[in-house]
Amino acid sequence: MNILYIMFDQLRFDYLSCAGHPHLHTPHIDALADKGVRFTRAYVQSPTCGSSRMSSYTGRYPSSHGVQFNSYPLRVGEWTMGDHLRKAGMSCHLIGKTHMVADAEGMERLGLAPDSVIGVRQSECGFDPWVRDDGLWAEGPDGCYDVKRSPYNEYLKSKGYPGENPWNDFANAGVEGNDIASGWFMANADKPANIAEEDSETPWLTTKAIEFIEQATGPWCAHLSYIKPHWPYIVPAPYHDMYGPEHVLPVVRSDAEREDAHPVFDGMMNNQIGKAFSRDEVRQKVIPAYMGLIKQADDQMGRLFAYLEQSGQMQDTMIVVTSDHGDYLGDHWLGEKNLFHEPSIKVPLIIYDPREQADVSRGSTCDALVEAIDLAPTFLEVAGGAPVPHILEGRSLQPWLHGESPEWRDYAVAEFDYSTMPLSAKLGLAPKDARLFMVTDHRWKLMHAEGGLRPMLFDLEADPNELVDLGTSAEHTDVREMMYERLHQWALRMSQRITLSDEQIMSGRGKSGRKGILLGVYEPDEIDAGLTVKYRGPVPQNTTDQ
Amino acid sequence: MNILYIMFDQLRFDYLSCAGHPHLHTPHIDALADKGVRFTRAYVQSPTCGSSRMSSYTGRYPSSHGVQFNSYPLRVGEWTMGDHLRKAGMSCHLIGKTHMVADAEGMERLGLAPDSVIGVRQSECGFDPWVRDDGLWAEGPDGCYDVKRSPYNEYLKSKGYPGENPWNDFANAGVEGNDIASGWFMANADKPANIAEEDSETPWLTTKAIEFIEQATGPWCAHLSYIKPHWPYIVPAPYHDMYGPEHVLPVVRSDAEREDAHPVFDGMMNNQIGKAFSRDEVRQKVIPAYMGLIKQADDQMGRLFAYLEQSGQMQDTMIVVTSDHGDYLGDHWLGEKNLFHEPSIKVPLIIYDPREQADVSRGSTCDALVEAIDLAPTFLEVAGGAPVPHILEGRSLQPWLHGESPEWRDYAVAEFDYSTMPLSAKLGLAPKDARLFMVTDHRWKLMHAEGGLRPMLFDLEADPNELVDLGTSAEHTDVREMMYERLHQWALRMSQRITLSDEQIMSGRGKSGRKGILLGVYEPDEIDAGLTVKYRGPVPQNTTDQ
Repeated sequence: MNILYIMFDQLRFDYLSCAGHPHLHTPHIDALADKGVRFTRAYVQSPTCGSSRMSSYTGRYPSSHGVQFNSYPLRVGEWTMGDHLRKAGMSCHLIGKTHMVADAEGMERLGLAPDSVIGVRQSECGFDPWVRDDGLWAEGPDGCYDVKRSPYNEYLKSKGYPGENPWNDFANAGVEGNDIASGWFMANADKPANIAEEDSETPWLTTKAIEFIEQATGPWCAHLSYIKPHWPYIVPAPYHDMYGPEHVLPVVRSDAEREDAHPVFDGMMNNQIGKAFSRDEVRQKVIPAYMGLIKQADDQMGRLFAYLEQSGQMQDTMIVVTSDHGDYLGDHWLGEKNLFHEPSIKVPLIIYDPREQADVSRGSTCDALVEAIDLAPTFLEVAGGAPVPHILEGRSLQPWLHGESPEWRDYAVAEFDYSTMPLSAKLGLAPKDARLFMVTDHRWKLMHAEGGLRPMLFDLEADPNELVDLGTSAEHTDVREMMYERLHQWALRMSQRITLSDEQIMSGRGKSGRKGILLGVYEPDEIDAGLTVKYRGPVPQNTTDQ
Repeated sequence: MNILYIMFDQLRFDYLSCAGHPHLHTPHIDALADKGVRFTRAYVQSPTCGSSRMSSYTGRYPSSHGVQFNSYPLRVGEWTMGDHLRKAGMSCHLIGKTHMVADAEGMERLGLAPDSVIGVRQSECGFDPWVRDDGLWAEGPDGCYDVKRSPYNEYLKSKGYPGENPWNDFANAGVEGNDIASGWFMANADKPANIAEEDSETPWLTTKAIEFIEQATGPWCAHLSYIKPHWPYIVPAPYHDMYGPEHVLPVVRSDAEREDAHPVFDGMMNNQIGKAFSRDEVRQKVIPAYMGLIKQADDQMGRLFAYLEQSGQMQDTMIVVTSDHGDYLGDHWLGEKNLFHEPSIKVPLIIYDPREQADVSRGSTCDALVEAIDLAPTFLEVAGGAPVPHILEGRSLQPWLHGESPEWRDYAVAEFDYSTMPLSAKLGLAPKDARLFMVTDHRWKLMHAEGGLRPMLFDLEADPNELVDLGTSAEHTDVREMMYERLHQWALRMSQRITLSDEQIMSGRGKSGRKGILLGVYEPDEIDAGLTVKYRGPVPQNTTDQ
């Protein structure tokens, strides 16, 4: 069996019709949910791209692999999904985005050439890149955000789009008169992107995926990693005007949230992003474009799934659809992501398993507390590899897919490092103190802040919209204590003993005596004579001069 | 300035006359203490060799580098003292023991040849080995504990000692009639080792160190890492009978310790080692031999320091004398180490800094809570390197040496993983649950046990011998809470963001806009026009067919 591991970027958990969106119809993704299991409480391990992705790709929490924010290099030698799968006989490929930054200093210290097979895998988070494009070809007075070559820009140039950065000038911009109407300015979100729809990012990557599958020999895992519906919020016709302000759901926020808000929450509500997304005009412009991007994505899923059907591969391919995090879209007076409310930290997760054992679960939902780090161990089990819980911190989801009800975790954890944000300086925090942790169970969600700041707490049952912060509520002292106990249990977890498995430890127990290490032995007759052969007998004699 | 970093193995903090031993006179080490600073509360990060050493050599806690017990391989790419020092222009060499096990699978995955310079450094914990000998040439029915080649055995053979393993048959055995009287059997501890004193392990390594220094060009750091006074407890004449039962200090233990003991403590008191060291005859035999080994070590220090004086290098060489852990020697009904009482987890630490700035502190003691992980940052500062607190978890001790009173930690931490011991199976614990943590401040010492076991607590002020376990005392609930708060604060520390420094983070804050990432911008005039140059202007035109 092969694995098609599809990730969208910044796709909110509830912006699919199978998840209840009343206006945004996503029949192709819904059809996959009908054939698979839809996980309703799937959490990423960080609300920001790079960190969340490194957790998904390594199967480990951010504080375990160290990539706590975008563009933190992943340390050389960290085990990835690709390393585990290749060891189990399955190749592992990348088509699209990872937000991976290589540990150039670490690679140089180990003498790894970036263009060797090993060097490329170290640079590409363990994937063999079919095509790598992070889709952030921004440029400002200090140069480009991403200095790599963009295969997508090369594609556009080959199709005749002029200029150095058609990603910027066409795929992510409309036109007004003779001028660019850039998608970087949200006022332009209702304009059609100035590009043929089939040349836009989502269809282009779908084509790349089909090209990959056509030539692939299995077993393979392909990470098809889309750039959208991530900003810039702009989409080509006909998707640009499929939705209007009448399809924008009511904003989820309350005035009470702004009163005596947690300092980090307060800082985010009052930065450029929070202030912008608190304006109605911004939501009315951005959300229809965001919905258009998702509608286009769903249509491309239709195209891709049809290709798999037609080529007879639907029965041999596990298909996963998920995202790296959500998007506040103005809820809670916030835009983007970067905190732990459900619109930001919860993601869609649908897994279709073609095998007969999964027939029992088709079309069902599962509300277990699932973490994005569960995918790597799931894939490893599918590939037939032995589990490696001393490295992978997640758990295989296969039992859920096969209708079982395994013993499961009681709480999910996510982390966020805002030390790169001006907010941390404003709060007077050293980088190590500008960190947040989320612990959520079936009812409660705690946010812990380092640096001596108070926690936040939400009752997901009584307050599913997370509008009432119980972080200082006197009646909830016990709840906070319980959640803190879990956080501390998690913090003490063993995460770095990656060079030795439980099996190796258990099989070696008490065996050092058989290799001559005798401890606490006063006289030879206290232990088995077989253990002391080398420690008894005549003193060796020099025979050289005999 | 060069650094001579001397480590003994299993040397108790109080088995030196400068530390108060009434019978064991160590004038050469005492003289160093007179010229330097003696730290009276220096803690290693694990009471077992391999783990403690990997912490000292990486400057990181065991749960940060993952080597939680002996023979756990150190993951490839982990930064070591040698890596940091070389970057700062100081070479770093090994003379003796490390207990390092290479991450062979990790090295193979990265294509690192074990015999390349890079491969050797990865295999030798970042040191350039002048000579590597771990001094554990044990052999049993399943073969050798250590399969490497022993340079010390080669030396003995070159001196005419016969047989394959003269370390075992001569250096660590006496003779009885024509037979070996092995040091592995503690009943033989009062016999002289059947070897010329100058050929025994401690003088041999001292000679190697002098040979190294003679040819070295600086600046260098040399880790002179002795094998003794670690077991087998046996020493050549004249040291074998310098001490007798009359020099054995009274045992520190109480019957109360055996009543309702903590399950891990109980397990250790009742294993082969604990039972043996609870016998008076064992202590009477072993402790004089242990003292003889230390006396020999002190004499070799005299020889080494005299060489440095004579060669004019005493003014250019920082000298550190310490140990990797202590030895219970029957105290608390225990032998060896492996728990957190002071005889096990506290070590001698003397630092002589020849520079004028250190004149103010010569001959003083310092009772700050020092950790073995402080040595790597100390050496880095001496080498003139910039501090790297995102990698090194310890703190430079240089301010103490220069008479300052820096802000310092409130508590010290150590860890122990007993998952490889049969005790963990006996207690029904999975490997991840067979872990212990120690937190100690100036008054209290808490031992936390994973796996749902209760804690232990000692009041070092009222009960300096740690005989009364307050782990369940109702009056000490607040103390345990305070100590647990510290443990949890420590557990949430940031330990893996090793690829990015605080400076890099702080200097990059808020700069993504200058590389074109514009977030929350509705209309261009909301921000500085310089940031939007690439997002405005005419749509590029195709000029190819003009």
